[in-house]
Amino acid sequence: MKCRTVALISDGTGITAETLCNGLLSQFEGIEFRYVRYPFTDSLEKADACLQRLTELAQEDGVRPLVVMTLMDAQLTVHLRQADALFLDLFDTFIAPLEQELGRKSTHSVGLSHGQETREYARRIAAMNFALAHDDGISAADFKNADVILVGVSRSGKTPTSLYLSLQFGLKAANYPLIPEDFERGCLPESLLAFRDKLFGLSIAPEQLHRIREERRPHSHYASIENCRAEVAAAERLMRREGIDWLDMTSRSIEEMSVHLLQLIHKKQEAVNRKP
Amino acid sequence: MKCRTVALISDGTGITAETLCNGLLSQFEGIEFRYVRYPFTDSLEKADACLQRLTELAQEDGVRPLVVMTLMDAQLTVHLRQADALFLDLFDTFIAPLEQELGRKSTHSVGLSHGQETREYARRIAAMNFALAHDDGISAADFKNADVILVGVSRSGKTPTSLYLSLQFGLKAANYPLIPEDFERGCLPESLLAFRDKLFGLSIAPEQLHRIREERRPHSHYASIENCRAEVAAAERLMRREGIDWLDMTSRSIEEMSVHLLQLIHKKQEAVNRKP
Repeated sequence: MKCRTVALISDGTGITAETLCNGLLSQFEGIEFRYVRYPFTDSLEKADACLQRLTELAQEDGVRPLVVMTLMDAQLTVHLRQADALFLDLFDTFIAPLEQELGRKSTHSVGLSHGQETREYARRIAAMNFALAHDDGISAADFKNADVILVGVSRSGKTPTSLYLSLQFGLKAANYPLIPEDFERGCLPESLLAFRDKLFGLSIAPEQLHRIREERRPHSHYASIENCRAEVAAAERLMRREGIDWLDMTSRSIEEMSVHLLQLIHKKQEAVNRKP
Repeated sequence: MKCRTVALISDGTGITAETLCNGLLSQFEGIEFRYVRYPFTDSLEKADACLQRLTELAQEDGVRPLVVMTLMDAQLTVHLRQADALFLDLFDTFIAPLEQELGRKSTHSVGLSHGQETREYARRIAAMNFALAHDDGISAADFKNADVILVGVSRSGKTPTSLYLSLQFGLKAANYPLIPEDFERGCLPESLLAFRDKLFGLSIAPEQLHRIREERRPHSHYASIENCRAEVAAAERLMRREGIDWLDMTSRSIEEMSVHLLQLIHKKQEAVNRKP
Protein backbone atom coordinates (compact mmCIF):
# COMPACT_ATOMS: atom_id res chain seq x y z
CA MET A 1 0.00 0.00 0.00
CA LYS A 2 1.23 3.48 -0.86
CA CYS A 3 1.96 5.70 2.12
CA ARG A 4 1.90 9.49 2.20
CA THR A 5 2.85 11.79 5.04
CA VAL A 6 0.38 14.46 6.12
CA ALA A 7 1.73 17.36 8.19
CA LEU A 8 -0.89 19.19 10.23
CA ILE A 9 0.35 22.68 11.03
CA SER A 10 -1.80 24.90 13.21
CA ASP A 11 -1.38 27.91 15.48
CA GLY A 12 -3.91 26.28 17.82
CA THR A 13 -4.57 22.68 18.76
CA GLY A 14 -5.07 21.56 15.15
CA ILE A 15 -7.98 19.34 16.21
CA THR A 16 -10.47 20.91 13.78
CA ALA A 17 -8.04 20.67 10.89
CA GLU A 18 -7.37 17.01 11.68
CA THR A 19 -11.06 16.13 11.82
CA LEU A 20 -11.78 17.81 8.49
CA CYS A 21 -8.67 16.20 7.01
CA ASN A 22 -9.86 12.74 8.14
CA GLY A 23 -13.07 13.30 6.20
CA LEU A 24 -11.22 14.39 3.06
CA LEU A 25 -8.63 11.60 3.11
CA SER A 26 -11.22 8.88 3.81
CA GLN A 27 -12.31 9.55 0.21
CA PHE A 28 -9.08 7.99 -1.08
CA GLU A 29 -8.84 4.23 -0.87
CA GLY A 30 -5.66 2.23 -1.12
CA ILE A 31 -3.39 4.89 0.36
CA GLU A 32 -2.15 4.90 3.92
CA PHE A 33 -1.76 8.33 5.47
CA ARG A 34 0.76 8.98 8.23
CA TYR A 35 0.07 12.09 10.31
CA VAL A 36 2.72 14.31 11.85
CA ARG A 37 1.35 17.11 14.00
CA TYR A 38 2.71 20.59 14.68
CA PRO A 39 0.20 22.29 16.99
CA PHE A 40 0.79 25.74 18.52
CA THR A 41 2.99 26.88 15.61
CA ASP A 42 2.75 30.55 16.48
CA SER A 43 6.24 31.96 15.93
CA LEU A 44 8.71 32.26 13.10
CA GLU A 45 11.12 29.97 14.98
CA LYS A 46 8.52 27.20 15.19
CA ALA A 47 7.49 27.72 11.56
CA ASP A 48 11.13 27.46 10.56
CA ALA A 49 11.54 24.18 12.43
CA CYS A 50 8.44 22.89 10.56
CA LEU A 51 9.90 24.02 7.25
CA GLN A 52 13.09 22.04 7.87
CA ARG A 53 11.13 18.98 8.94
CA LEU A 54 9.00 19.16 5.77
CA THR A 55 12.16 19.05 3.65
CA GLU A 56 13.43 16.03 5.60
CA LEU A 57 10.07 14.28 5.24
CA ALA A 58 10.15 14.73 1.46
CA GLN A 59 13.63 13.15 1.38
CA GLU A 60 12.70 10.27 3.68
CA ASP A 61 9.52 9.44 1.76
CA GLY A 62 10.85 10.09 -1.73
CA VAL A 63 7.68 12.10 -2.37
CA ARG A 64 6.56 15.52 -1.15
CA PRO A 65 4.31 15.63 1.92
CA LEU A 66 0.76 16.94 2.12
CA VAL A 67 0.44 19.96 4.41
CA VAL A 68 -2.86 20.89 6.02
CA MET A 69 -2.55 24.37 7.50
CA THR A 70 -4.61 26.58 9.75
CA LEU A 71 -2.46 29.63 10.44
CA MET A 72 -3.87 33.11 10.94
CA ASP A 73 -0.50 34.84 10.62
CA ALA A 74 0.17 35.43 6.91
CA GLN A 75 3.91 35.82 7.55
CA LEU A 76 4.18 32.28 8.88
CA THR A 77 2.14 30.94 5.96
CA VAL A 78 4.45 32.63 3.43
CA HIS A 79 7.51 31.24 5.21
CA LEU A 80 6.18 27.67 5.20
CA ARG A 81 5.15 27.81 1.57
CA GLN A 82 8.83 27.68 0.61
CA ALA A 83 8.66 23.93 1.23
CA ASP A 84 8.02 21.50 -1.60
CA ALA A 85 4.62 20.18 -0.53
CA LEU A 86 0.96 20.11 -1.49
CA PHE A 87 -0.60 22.83 0.64
CA LEU A 88 -4.22 22.66 1.73
CA ASP A 89 -4.68 25.96 3.51
CA LEU A 90 -7.94 25.94 5.44
CA PHE A 91 -7.77 29.61 6.41
CA ASP A 92 -6.02 31.36 3.58
CA THR A 93 -8.20 29.73 0.91
CA PHE A 94 -11.37 31.19 2.37
CA ILE A 95 -10.19 34.51 3.82
CA ALA A 96 -9.91 36.25 0.41
CA PRO A 97 -13.47 35.46 -0.78
CA LEU A 98 -14.79 36.40 2.67
CA GLU A 99 -12.95 39.73 2.59
CA GLN A 100 -14.46 40.50 -0.78
CA GLU A 101 -17.98 39.45 0.24
CA LEU A 102 -17.92 41.31 3.55
CA GLY A 103 -16.22 44.38 2.13
CA ARG A 104 -13.52 44.59 4.79
CA LYS A 105 -10.08 43.27 5.61
CA SER A 106 -9.64 40.41 8.07
CA THR A 107 -7.61 41.10 11.19
CA HIS A 108 -5.35 38.08 10.58
CA SER A 109 -4.75 37.64 14.25
CA VAL A 110 -4.70 34.63 16.53
CA GLY A 111 -7.27 34.22 19.28
CA LEU A 112 -8.98 37.51 18.58
CA SER A 113 -12.35 36.62 20.01
CA HIS A 114 -10.79 35.73 23.33
CA GLY A 115 -13.12 37.74 25.54
CA GLN A 116 -16.12 36.00 24.11
CA GLU A 117 -14.35 32.64 23.99
CA THR A 118 -13.60 32.92 27.69
CA ARG A 119 -17.26 33.39 28.59
CA GLU A 120 -18.31 30.59 26.26
CA TYR A 121 -15.56 28.41 27.70
CA ALA A 122 -16.67 29.06 31.29
CA ARG A 123 -20.19 28.11 30.22
CA ARG A 124 -18.99 24.81 28.77
CA ILE A 125 -16.97 23.92 31.87
CA ALA A 126 -19.90 24.81 34.15
CA ALA A 127 -22.16 22.66 31.98
CA MET A 128 -19.75 19.76 32.23
CA ASN A 129 -19.61 19.99 36.01
CA PHE A 130 -23.41 20.04 35.98
CA ALA A 131 -23.53 16.94 33.76
CA LEU A 132 -21.14 15.07 36.07
CA ALA A 133 -23.07 16.09 39.18
CA HIS A 134 -26.36 14.99 37.60
CA ASP A 135 -25.21 11.78 35.99
CA ASP A 136 -27.26 8.63 36.42
CA GLY A 137 -29.92 10.31 38.56
CA ILE A 138 -27.36 11.08 41.30
CA SER A 139 -29.14 14.28 42.23
CA ALA A 140 -32.58 15.52 41.34
CA ALA A 141 -32.20 18.66 43.44
CA ASP A 142 -31.16 20.81 40.54
CA PHE A 143 -33.30 19.52 37.65
CA LYS A 144 -34.89 22.96 37.42
CA ASN A 145 -31.57 24.37 36.22
CA ALA A 146 -31.07 21.67 33.58
CA ASP A 147 -31.42 22.54 29.89
CA VAL A 148 -32.24 18.93 29.11
CA ILE A 149 -32.82 15.71 31.07
CA LEU A 150 -32.11 12.48 29.21
CA VAL A 151 -33.98 9.33 30.21
CA GLY A 152 -33.46 5.74 29.09
CA VAL A 153 -32.51 2.29 30.34
CA SER A 154 -29.10 1.67 31.90
CA ARG A 155 -26.29 1.66 29.25
CA SER A 156 -28.39 3.23 26.51
CA GLY A 157 -25.82 6.01 26.06
CA LYS A 158 -27.12 8.71 28.41
CA THR A 159 -23.82 9.48 30.14
CA PRO A 160 -21.58 9.98 27.09
CA THR A 161 -24.33 11.94 25.33
CA SER A 162 -24.85 14.21 28.37
CA LEU A 163 -21.13 14.86 28.65
CA TYR A 164 -20.79 15.61 24.95
CA LEU A 165 -23.80 17.96 24.95
CA SER A 166 -22.23 19.87 27.84
CA LEU A 167 -18.64 19.94 26.62
CA GLN A 168 -19.39 20.75 22.98
CA PHE A 169 -22.52 22.85 23.24
CA GLY A 170 -22.51 24.16 26.82
CA LEU A 171 -25.88 22.56 27.59
CA LYS A 172 -26.61 21.60 31.18
CA ALA A 173 -27.58 18.00 30.55
CA ALA A 174 -28.77 15.81 33.41
CA ASN A 175 -29.70 12.19 32.96
CA TYR A 176 -31.97 9.77 34.76
CA PRO A 177 -31.97 5.99 34.33
CA LEU A 178 -35.31 4.23 33.80
CA ILE A 179 -35.26 1.15 36.03
CA PRO A 180 -37.66 -1.76 36.70
CA GLU A 181 -39.37 0.17 39.55
CA ASP A 182 -40.31 2.90 37.05
CA PHE A 183 -41.80 0.29 34.73
CA GLU A 184 -43.76 -1.35 37.57
CA ARG A 185 -45.09 2.00 38.71
CA GLY A 186 -46.02 2.65 35.09
CA CYS A 187 -45.37 6.38 35.23
CA LEU A 188 -42.48 8.79 35.64
CA PRO A 189 -41.06 9.34 39.11
CA GLU A 190 -42.34 12.37 41.02
CA SER A 191 -39.01 14.22 40.69
CA LEU A 192 -39.29 14.32 36.89
CA LEU A 193 -42.96 15.22 36.47
CA ALA A 194 -42.46 18.96 36.82
CA PHE A 195 -39.85 18.99 34.06
CA ARG A 196 -41.68 17.20 31.30
CA ASP A 197 -40.67 19.84 28.73
CA LYS A 198 -36.99 19.08 29.29
CA LEU A 199 -37.24 15.31 28.94
CA PHE A 200 -35.83 13.43 25.97
CA GLY A 201 -35.44 9.70 25.67
CA LEU A 202 -32.72 7.44 24.31
CA SER A 203 -33.56 3.97 23.13
CA ILE A 204 -31.38 1.20 21.71
CA ALA A 205 -31.77 -2.17 19.98
CA PRO A 206 -32.00 -4.92 22.66
CA GLU A 207 -29.25 -6.95 20.90
CA GLN A 208 -26.79 -4.07 21.13
CA LEU A 209 -27.77 -3.34 24.73
CA HIS A 210 -27.18 -7.01 25.53
CA ARG A 211 -23.66 -6.85 24.04
CA ILE A 212 -22.81 -3.67 25.97
CA ARG A 213 -24.14 -5.01 29.27
CA GLU A 214 -22.39 -8.38 28.82
CA GLU A 215 -19.05 -6.57 28.83
CA ARG A 216 -19.93 -5.01 32.13
CA ARG A 217 -21.67 -7.91 33.92
CA PRO A 218 -21.20 -11.13 31.95
CA HIS A 219 -23.88 -13.86 32.24
CA SER A 220 -26.07 -11.76 34.53
CA HIS A 221 -29.84 -11.43 34.47
CA TYR A 222 -29.20 -7.70 33.91
CA ALA A 223 -27.32 -8.39 30.67
CA SER A 224 -29.46 -11.26 29.35
CA ILE A 225 -31.11 -10.71 25.99
CA GLU A 226 -34.53 -11.49 27.50
CA ASN A 227 -34.14 -8.81 30.14
CA CYS A 228 -32.77 -6.30 27.63
CA ARG A 229 -35.77 -6.93 25.35
CA ALA A 230 -38.20 -6.51 28.25
CA GLU A 231 -36.54 -3.32 29.56
CA VAL A 232 -36.34 -1.64 26.15
CA ALA A 233 -40.00 -2.49 25.39
CA ALA A 234 -41.13 -1.23 28.81
CA ALA A 235 -39.09 1.97 28.50
CA GLU A 236 -40.52 2.71 25.05
CA ARG A 237 -44.06 2.04 26.33
CA LEU A 238 -43.48 4.41 29.22
CA MET A 239 -42.01 7.15 27.02
CA ARG A 240 -44.85 6.81 24.52
CA ARG A 241 -47.46 7.03 27.29
CA GLU A 242 -45.78 10.08 28.84
CA GLY A 243 -45.36 11.84 25.50
CA ILE A 244 -41.55 11.92 25.65
CA ASP A 245 -39.77 12.24 22.30
CA TRP A 246 -37.03 9.69 21.97
CA LEU A 247 -34.27 8.79 19.54
CA ASP A 248 -32.59 5.50 18.81
CA MET A 249 -28.91 5.26 19.72
CA THR A 250 -28.29 1.95 17.92
CA SER A 251 -26.47 3.14 14.82
CA ARG A 252 -25.60 6.65 15.95
CA SER A 253 -22.42 8.02 17.45
CA ILE A 254 -22.75 10.32 20.46
CA GLU A 255 -21.81 13.26 18.20
CA GLU A 256 -24.66 12.43 15.81
CA MET A 257 -27.07 11.80 18.68
CA SER A 258 -26.16 15.14 20.27
CA VAL A 259 -26.85 17.09 17.08
CA HIS A 260 -30.16 15.25 16.55
CA LEU A 261 -31.11 16.05 20.15
CA LEU A 262 -30.17 19.70 19.67
CA GLN A 263 -32.63 19.86 16.76
CA LEU A 264 -35.37 18.28 18.91
CA ILE A 265 -34.60 20.64 21.81
CA HIS A 266 -34.79 23.70 19.56
CA LYS A 267 -38.08 22.54 18.06
CA LYS A 268 -39.59 21.98 21.49
CA GLN A 269 -38.34 25.34 22.80
CA GLU A 270 -39.92 27.06 19.80
CA ALA A 271 -43.20 25.22 20.47
CA VAL A 272 -43.09 26.19 24.18
CA ASN A 273 -42.39 29.82 23.27
CA ARG A 274 -45.33 29.86 20.86
CA LYS A 275 -47.76 28.72 23.58
CA PRO A 276 -50.07 31.58 24.66
CA MET B 1 -23.90 46.42 13.56
CA LYS B 2 -24.20 44.64 10.25
CA CYS B 3 -25.63 41.13 10.41
CA ARG B 4 -25.03 38.31 7.96
CA THR B 5 -26.61 34.88 7.92
CA VAL B 6 -24.33 31.85 7.72
CA ALA B 7 -25.89 28.56 6.63
CA LEU B 8 -23.96 25.47 7.68
CA ILE B 9 -24.87 22.58 5.40
CA SER B 10 -23.37 19.19 6.11
CA ASP B 11 -24.12 15.54 5.40
CA GLY B 12 -22.92 14.77 8.94
CA THR B 13 -23.17 16.66 12.20
CA GLY B 14 -21.55 19.83 10.80
CA ILE B 15 -19.59 20.30 14.02
CA THR B 16 -16.20 20.41 12.31
CA ALA B 17 -17.42 22.90 9.72
CA GLU B 18 -18.85 25.13 12.44
CA THR B 19 -15.64 25.12 14.46
CA LEU B 20 -13.53 26.03 11.44
CA CYS B 21 -16.08 28.65 10.43
CA ASN B 22 -15.92 30.24 13.90
CA GLY B 23 -12.17 30.66 13.45
CA LEU B 24 -12.57 32.24 10.01
CA LEU B 25 -15.37 34.62 10.97
CA SER B 26 -13.65 35.75 14.19
CA GLN B 27 -11.25 37.52 11.81
CA PHE B 28 -13.95 40.01 10.83
CA GLU B 29 -14.82 42.62 13.42
CA GLY B 30 -17.97 44.72 13.42
CA ILE B 31 -20.18 42.13 11.77
CA GLU B 32 -22.60 39.90 13.62
CA PHE B 33 -23.04 36.43 12.19
CA ARG B 34 -26.26 34.48 12.63
CA TYR B 35 -25.94 30.73 12.13
CA VAL B 36 -28.60 28.47 10.69
CA ARG B 37 -27.71 24.79 10.69
CA TYR B 38 -28.69 22.00 8.30
CA PRO B 39 -26.98 18.86 9.57
CA PHE B 40 -27.56 15.40 8.05
CA THR B 41 -28.35 16.85 4.60
CA ASP B 42 -27.90 13.55 2.80
CA SER B 43 -30.70 13.40 0.23
CA LEU B 44 -31.89 15.44 -2.72
CA GLU B 45 -35.13 16.22 -0.83
CA LYS B 46 -33.24 17.71 2.09
CA ALA B 47 -30.89 19.60 -0.23
CA ASP B 48 -33.91 20.99 -2.04
CA ALA B 49 -35.46 22.19 1.22
CA CYS B 50 -32.12 23.94 2.01
CA LEU B 51 -32.09 25.54 -1.42
CA GLN B 52 -35.54 27.04 -0.87
CA ARG B 53 -34.55 28.25 2.59
CA LEU B 54 -31.43 29.94 1.19
CA THR B 55 -33.58 31.89 -1.24
CA GLU B 56 -35.90 32.99 1.57
CA LEU B 57 -32.94 34.00 3.74
CA ALA B 58 -31.59 36.21 0.95
CA GLN B 59 -34.98 37.93 0.69
CA GLU B 60 -35.40 38.35 4.44
CA ASP B 61 -31.88 39.75 4.91
CA GLY B 62 -31.75 41.83 1.72
CA VAL B 63 -28.29 40.33 1.15
CA ARG B 64 -27.20 36.86 0.06
CA PRO B 65 -26.24 34.39 2.79
CA LEU B 66 -22.85 32.78 3.33
CA VAL B 67 -22.94 29.00 2.92
CA VAL B 68 -20.36 26.75 4.52
CA MET B 69 -20.67 23.28 3.04
CA THR B 70 -19.26 19.85 3.77
CA LEU B 71 -21.05 17.50 1.40
CA MET B 72 -19.41 14.43 -0.11
CA ASP B 73 -22.14 13.87 -2.70
CA ALA B 74 -21.31 16.02 -5.74
CA GLN B 75 -24.93 15.86 -6.95
CA LEU B 76 -26.19 17.60 -3.81
CA THR B 77 -23.45 20.21 -4.07
CA VAL B 78 -24.39 21.02 -7.67
CA HIS B 79 -28.07 21.30 -6.71
CA LEU B 80 -27.37 23.70 -3.85
CA ARG B 81 -25.08 25.88 -5.91
CA GLN B 82 -28.12 27.17 -7.78
CA ALA B 83 -28.76 29.46 -4.80
CA ASP B 84 -27.48 33.02 -4.77
CA ALA B 85 -24.96 32.76 -1.95
CA LEU B 86 -21.25 32.92 -1.20
CA PHE B 87 -20.19 29.28 -1.06
CA LEU B 88 -17.29 28.14 1.06
CA ASP B 89 -17.02 24.49 0.17
CA LEU B 90 -14.74 22.72 2.63
CA PHE B 91 -14.71 19.43 0.74
CA ASP B 92 -15.01 20.30 -2.91
CA THR B 93 -12.27 22.96 -2.74
CA PHE B 94 -9.67 20.44 -1.61
CA ILE B 95 -10.80 17.25 -3.32
CA ALA B 96 -9.56 18.29 -6.79
CA PRO B 97 -5.97 19.13 -5.75
CA LEU B 98 -5.87 15.94 -3.65
CA GLU B 99 -7.05 13.85 -6.61
CA GLN B 100 -4.31 15.32 -8.76
CA GLU B 101 -1.61 14.89 -6.11
CA LEU B 102 -2.59 11.32 -5.24
CA GLY B 103 -3.19 10.27 -8.84
CA ARG B 104 -6.61 8.76 -8.22
CA LYS B 105 -10.27 9.68 -8.07
CA SER B 106 -11.99 10.17 -4.74
CA THR B 107 -14.89 7.89 -3.93
CA HIS B 108 -17.19 10.83 -3.13
CA SER B 109 -19.15 8.79 -0.65
CA VAL B 110 -20.48 9.50 2.80
CA GLY B 111 -19.23 7.64 5.83
CA LEU B 112 -16.88 5.44 3.84
CA SER B 113 -14.45 4.74 6.64
CA HIS B 114 -17.23 3.44 8.83
CA GLY B 115 -15.66 0.10 9.69
CA GLN B 116 -12.60 1.82 11.04
CA GLU B 117 -14.69 4.56 12.62
CA THR B 118 -16.62 1.92 14.53
CA ARG B 119 -13.47 0.41 16.05
CA GLU B 120 -12.09 3.85 16.79
CA TYR B 121 -15.45 4.87 18.21
CA ALA B 122 -15.64 1.84 20.50
CA ARG B 123 -12.14 2.71 21.73
CA ARG B 124 -13.23 6.27 22.56
CA ILE B 125 -16.35 5.14 24.42
CA ALA B 126 -14.34 2.52 26.37
CA ALA B 127 -11.79 5.23 27.22
CA MET B 128 -14.54 7.54 28.45
CA ASN B 129 -16.01 4.86 30.68
CA PHE B 130 -12.51 4.28 32.02
CA ALA B 131 -12.05 8.01 32.70
CA LEU B 132 -15.37 8.17 34.57
CA ALA B 133 -14.57 5.07 36.61
CA HIS B 134 -11.13 6.44 37.52
CA ASP B 135 -12.06 10.03 38.19
CA ASP B 136 -10.80 11.72 41.32
CA GLY B 137 -8.90 8.69 42.57
CA ILE B 138 -12.13 6.67 42.88
CA SER B 139 -10.37 3.45 42.01
CA ALA B 140 -6.68 2.65 41.87
CA ALA B 141 -7.33 -1.00 41.01
CA ASP B 142 -6.93 -0.48 37.29
CA PHE B 143 -4.11 2.08 37.07
CA LYS B 144 -2.04 -0.51 35.22
CA ASN B 145 -4.45 -0.23 32.27
CA ALA B 146 -4.34 3.57 32.18
CA ASP B 147 -2.55 5.34 29.35
CA VAL B 148 -2.03 8.37 31.54
CA ILE B 149 -2.70 9.33 35.17
CA LEU B 150 -3.16 13.04 35.85
CA VAL B 151 -2.27 14.39 39.28
CA GLY B 152 -2.89 17.83 40.76
CA VAL B 153 -4.72 19.64 43.54
CA SER B 154 -8.50 19.58 43.73
CA ARG B 155 -10.12 21.75 40.99
CA SER B 156 -6.96 22.12 38.92
CA GLY B 157 -8.74 20.78 35.84
CA LYS B 158 -8.00 17.05 36.03
CA THR B 159 -11.55 15.81 35.43
CA PRO B 160 -12.44 17.82 32.30
CA THR B 161 -8.98 17.15 30.86
CA SER B 162 -9.27 13.40 31.51
CA LEU B 163 -12.69 13.29 29.88
CA TYR B 164 -11.54 15.27 26.87
CA LEU B 165 -8.43 13.11 26.40
CA SER B 166 -10.64 10.02 26.43
CA LEU B 167 -13.49 11.32 24.27
CA GLN B 168 -11.35 13.05 21.65
CA PHE B 169 -8.24 10.87 21.55
CA GLY B 170 -9.38 7.54 23.00
CA LEU B 171 -6.79 7.68 25.80
CA LYS B 172 -7.58 5.88 29.04
CA ALA B 173 -6.99 8.78 31.39
CA ALA B 174 -7.24 8.29 35.15
CA ASN B 175 -6.78 11.10 37.61
CA TYR B 176 -5.69 11.32 41.21
CA PRO B 177 -6.11 14.37 43.46
CA LEU B 178 -3.10 15.50 45.51
CA ILE B 179 -4.43 16.27 49.00
CA PRO B 180 -2.91 17.59 52.25
CA GLU B 181 -2.07 14.03 53.43
CA ASP B 182 0.11 13.56 50.34
CA PHE B 183 1.95 16.80 51.14
CA GLU B 184 2.46 15.80 54.79
CA ARG B 185 3.75 12.39 53.77
CA GLY B 186 6.03 14.21 51.32
CA CYS B 187 5.93 11.51 48.69
CA LEU B 188 3.51 9.90 46.30
CA PRO B 189 1.01 7.39 47.65
CA GLU B 190 1.93 3.72 47.31
CA SER B 191 -0.73 3.09 44.67
CA LEU B 192 0.92 5.51 42.23
CA LEU B 193 4.59 4.58 42.72
CA ALA B 194 4.55 1.70 40.25
CA PHE B 195 3.16 3.91 37.49
CA ARG B 196 5.59 6.79 37.55
CA ASP B 197 5.99 6.73 33.76
CA LYS B 198 2.28 7.46 33.29
CA LEU B 199 2.08 10.41 35.67
CA PHE B 200 1.60 13.96 34.48
CA GLY B 201 0.78 16.94 36.64
CA LEU B 202 -1.56 19.89 36.27
CA SER B 203 -0.88 23.09 38.14
CA ILE B 204 -2.76 26.37 38.26
CA ALA B 205 -2.28 29.93 39.54
CA PRO B 206 -3.44 30.12 43.20
CA GLU B 207 -5.64 33.17 42.41
CA GLN B 208 -7.56 31.27 39.74
CA LEU B 209 -7.85 28.19 41.95
CA HIS B 210 -9.23 30.42 44.69
CA ARG B 211 -11.91 31.82 42.35
CA ILE B 212 -12.92 28.34 41.15
CA ARG B 213 -13.10 26.92 44.68
CA GLU B 214 -15.04 29.94 46.00
CA GLU B 215 -17.85 29.10 43.57
CA ARG B 216 -18.02 25.62 44.99
CA ARG B 217 -17.51 26.29 48.73
CA PRO B 218 -17.68 30.02 49.43
CA HIS B 219 -15.72 31.41 52.42
CA SER B 220 -14.25 28.01 53.29
CA HIS B 221 -10.69 27.27 54.41
CA TYR B 222 -10.54 25.01 51.33
CA ALA B 223 -11.20 27.96 49.01
CA SER B 224 -9.16 30.62 50.84
CA ILE B 225 -6.34 32.23 48.91
CA GLU B 226 -3.86 31.27 51.67
CA ASN B 227 -4.80 27.61 51.44
CA CYS B 228 -4.76 27.67 47.62
CA ARG B 229 -1.25 29.20 47.68
CA ALA B 230 -0.04 26.61 50.17
CA GLU B 231 -1.55 23.66 48.27
CA VAL B 232 -0.24 24.74 44.86
CA ALA B 233 3.25 25.33 46.28
CA ALA B 234 3.23 21.96 48.06
CA ALA B 235 1.95 20.15 44.96
CA GLU B 236 4.64 21.70 42.76
CA ARG B 237 7.32 20.82 45.34
CA LEU B 238 6.09 17.23 45.41
CA MET B 239 5.95 16.92 41.62
CA ARG B 240 9.44 18.42 41.28
CA ARG B 241 10.86 16.03 43.88
CA GLU B 242 9.20 13.03 42.22
CA GLY B 243 10.29 14.04 38.71
CA ILE B 244 6.75 14.43 37.38
CA ASP B 245 6.37 16.69 34.34
CA TRP B 246 3.60 19.17 34.83
CA LEU B 247 1.82 21.87 32.85
CA ASP B 248 0.06 25.01 33.96
CA MET B 249 -3.70 25.11 33.35
CA THR B 250 -4.10 28.82 34.18
CA SER B 251 -4.48 30.30 30.71
CA ARG B 252 -5.17 27.10 28.79
CA SER B 253 -8.43 25.57 27.68
CA ILE B 254 -8.89 21.84 28.20
CA GLU B 255 -8.50 21.34 24.43
CA GLU B 256 -5.13 23.13 24.47
CA MET B 257 -4.05 21.30 27.63
CA SER B 258 -4.98 17.95 26.11
CA VAL B 259 -2.90 18.56 22.99
CA HIS B 260 0.07 19.77 25.08
CA LEU B 261 -0.25 16.64 27.23
CA LEU B 262 -0.38 14.43 24.14
CA GLN B 263 2.95 15.89 23.04
CA LEU B 264 4.46 15.21 26.49
CA ILE B 265 3.05 11.68 26.53
CA HIS B 266 4.50 10.89 23.09
CA LYS B 267 7.90 12.28 24.11
CA LYS B 268 7.95 10.16 27.26
CA GLN B 269 6.83 7.03 25.41
CA GLU B 270 9.65 7.54 22.91
CA ALA B 271 12.13 7.97 25.79
CA VAL B 272 10.84 4.81 27.51
CA ASN B 273 11.08 2.86 24.24
CA ARG B 274 14.67 4.02 23.76
CA LYS B 275 15.72 2.65 27.17
CA PRO B 276 17.86 -0.49 26.83
